[in-house]
Amino acid sequence: MGKSTVNLGVIGCGTVGGSFIKAVSRQRKHLLERTGIDFSVTGIYDKDPEAMIGFPHSVRRDSADSIIRDPSIDIVVELIGGVNPACDITSDCFRRGKSVVNANKALICEKGRELLSLAGRSGVYLGFEAAVAGAVPVIKAIRESFLPNRISRILGILNGTTNYILSEMSGGKTSFSRSLARAQKAGYAEADPSLDVSGWDTAHKISILSMLAFNRFIPPESLYVEGIEGVEPLDIRFAGEFGYRLKLLAVARRHNSKIELRVHPVLLPESHLLSMVEGVNNAVYIEGDMMGKGMLYGEGAGGEAAASAVLADVVDISRRLLSGGASPERTPVARILSPVPMSEIATRYYFRFTAVDKPGVLSEISRLLGIHGISIASVIQKEESPEKAVPLVMLTHRALEQNVIEAISKIDSLPVIKNPTKLIRIEE
Amino acid sequence: MGKSTVNLGVIGCGTVGGSFIKAVSRQRKHLLERTGIDFSVTGIYDKDPEAMIGFPHSVRRDSADSIIRDPSIDIVVELIGGVNPACDITSDCFRRGKSVVNANKALICEKGRELLSLAGRSGVYLGFEAAVAGAVPVIKAIRESFLPNRISRILGILNGTTNYILSEMSGGKTSFSRSLARAQKAGYAEADPSLDVSGWDTAHKISILSMLAFNRFIPPESLYVEGIEGVEPLDIRFAGEFGYRLKLLAVARRHNSKIELRVHPVLLPESHLLSMVEGVNNAVYIEGDMMGKGMLYGEGAGGEAAASAVLADVVDISRRLLSGGASPERTPVARILSPVPMSEIATRYYFRFTAVDKPGVLSEISRLLGIHGISIASVIQKEESPEKAVPLVMLTHRALEQNVIEAISKIDSLPVIKNPTKLIRIEE
Repeated sequence: MGKSTVNLGVIGCGTVGGSFIKAVSRQRKHLLERTGIDFSVTGIYDKDPEAMIGFPHSVRRDSADSIIRDPSIDIVVELIGGVNPACDITSDCFRRGKSVVNANKALICEKGRELLSLAGRSGVYLGFEAAVAGAVPVIKAIRESFLPNRISRILGILNGTTNYILSEMSGGKTSFSRSLARAQKAGYAEADPSLDVSGWDTAHKISILSMLAFNRFIPPESLYVEGIEGVEPLDIRFAGEFGYRLKLLAVARRHNSKIELRVHPVLLPESHLLSMVEGVNNAVYIEGDMMGKGMLYGEGAGGEAAASAVLADVVDISRRLLSGGASPERTPVARILSPVPMSEIATRYYFRFTAVDKPGVLSEISRLLGIHGISIASVIQKEESPEKAVPLVMLTHRALEQNVIEAISKIDSLPVIKNPTKLIRIEE
Repeated sequence: MGKSTVNLGVIGCGTVGGSFIKAVSRQRKHLLERTGIDFSVTGIYDKDPEAMIGFPHSVRRDSADSIIRDPSIDIVVELIGGVNPACDITSDCFRRGKSVVNANKALICEKGRELLSLAGRSGVYLGFEAAVAGAVPVIKAIRESFLPNRISRILGILNGTTNYILSEMSGGKTSFSRSLARAQKAGYAEADPSLDVSGWDTAHKISILSMLAFNRFIPPESLYVEGIEGVEPLDIRFAGEFGYRLKLLAVARRHNSKIELRVHPVLLPESHLLSMVEGVNNAVYIEGDMMGKGMLYGEGAGGEAAASAVLADVVDISRRLLSGGASPERTPVARILSPVPMSEIATRYYFRFTAVDKPGVLSEISRLLGIHGISIASVIQKEESPEKAVPLVMLTHRALEQNVIEAISKIDSLPVIKNPTKLIRIEE
């Protein structure tokens, strides 16, 4: 194999950037053996000069521009994150004929359609495998391996922090706040964990996957998003008795031209592969008309896992550039779409009613559910002292969310109901 | 996006070929929307004219050659399987500048290195995603997504038939022969299932994966291969008591320049993701130095799943051809290597001794194991009538296979041992 050289510039030397820069030099011989390409990082920049300490002086630059304008740099790796100035840096690179690789979910959500289109027009590439699910190659799988399929459903565990917290809570003995504290102590949760535990990080990621899978862009702001702050150990225990586990899932489902897209806690059967995904791992479960059901699983967080995905994109783009491909395939620009309103979705539900243990309560609740077309699949009622309000737990068959909301509202106004009813959606 | 046209020729119209031809026409609009490429099958050939019935007369050809020599055909899809004449057809295509896609594990094992090299020299591509694990994109994942990694271990469930049979046996109540009969009835096992149940189909597939992962080719004939014919429900039950499940696994493990490669029944902890892979599904578990642990899962068998993988290769190659890439990346030719001899592997073991229930038996067995450096992790001995030989089951800590074989041979010659000891290796 002939030897070729590819020079990389890295903008942003934080956790992922640092891992990436070290990896390029550590894996250099391995990459050369496998690809015939000699990769090296010849320019790095971080607005915080301290972040560059530990890397050779010879590669440190004093501005992002010095990397973008350097004609000897072939590919720019943008690892600063966020929409600005990452967006300007990326478009500047494209205009100068440089391909860009990032791990920037915010940028892809906000500007991905425009940037992919600009890259196509500029004859360069934009790689963002690391933006979703770390080392798990789900972007490539959807864009390439599963492309022949009409994808009908995607279920994703896309946030390591929340999955770690839910794994800690899985016995149903530890509270959310204690599990969050453990996650922070173990370095798996930020000091301010709100973006993760609220579900919004997951919402950004499923918005990207659904854009690639369905060729329709649903902005994350338009999603129904419910985090795990309200998850109670009690519900995890009851779900376990029915044979279910609780996970924070992104759910994308296509019905002809309509798309359901939502993020919330979900009960999954114990036998479902996604139920087995523990700790900070990520997984994406995909159904298509030819492939059937598939799953990709792996490390969703951490500098090395993300660097693996960034480096894979770098290798991919380098191979294409070196094979003389003048113009990259053009990704069609996804049209913007609103998701199916939550009131119109139909799924199975878990309800936990907190009712006074009096005769006739179960019958009254069942009657109100029945009126709204909701039929009960199974029930657990625990014996307790008759004075105390007791949990009454039900799993339903498929029902329309709008009917469920109406029924629960009526049930919650009954005098025998002591607390708002807890509702968790079920996927299988 | 500009519209381009790619014409496909299909040689071999069996299950996969038939599914593929139909899929190209069924997914035509979808593919056009996603790629800007208009795919059509313009030539098909099968040596059995009956196999072509149901497809338009206009595309039927009377020889493979008429497809290979047709300058209007861009990519040839070879789905006849086997080494010959597939090998000649493939090289003919390459010489005429045509890329080839197949699902042909035998050909890739036997001639893959030469053909990949010839494709590189001819400026064309060879796609074979469907040769291993059906719709699961493991070939692409190893060659592209995980390429930056030094892969250290691959565990694979690569044969749907054996996994279906073992799933049927999983309660430990059904025999191998009855489960095989069920698999045949359900259409998941051939009338002659020997290639599947013997483990040799799996051996071919792991040989391909290990060639791509380690850049070393270990011919399947040189592997240690043990099938599932000897699996007894009793061992599945005992393993369950220890918290393990039995699977037929391909195991590839790299130790610096040495590679372990073997196929045999394995006990896996119930909490391992591979333990959850049921029925005809396939899964590949991969560990790398950057990515950590990852898994790909999906449908390993069936015409549609294979056609999905074939079509993904066709799209991939078409995109590269149309982007003007003159010369494909060259895959380095993997050197041929022998696997680590079985006597040198070290792993944990499950033993089932069939011993007369007399005082001192456990102590004598433990003593012989101890002499050979094998230490016991846990034991189950079931109470039975003292006259009868009883099963004595042990899990060991890590031990060297050579020591295990010697110890078992000595133990089996004790007069209190009534049947040859059953040995199953453990992975975690």
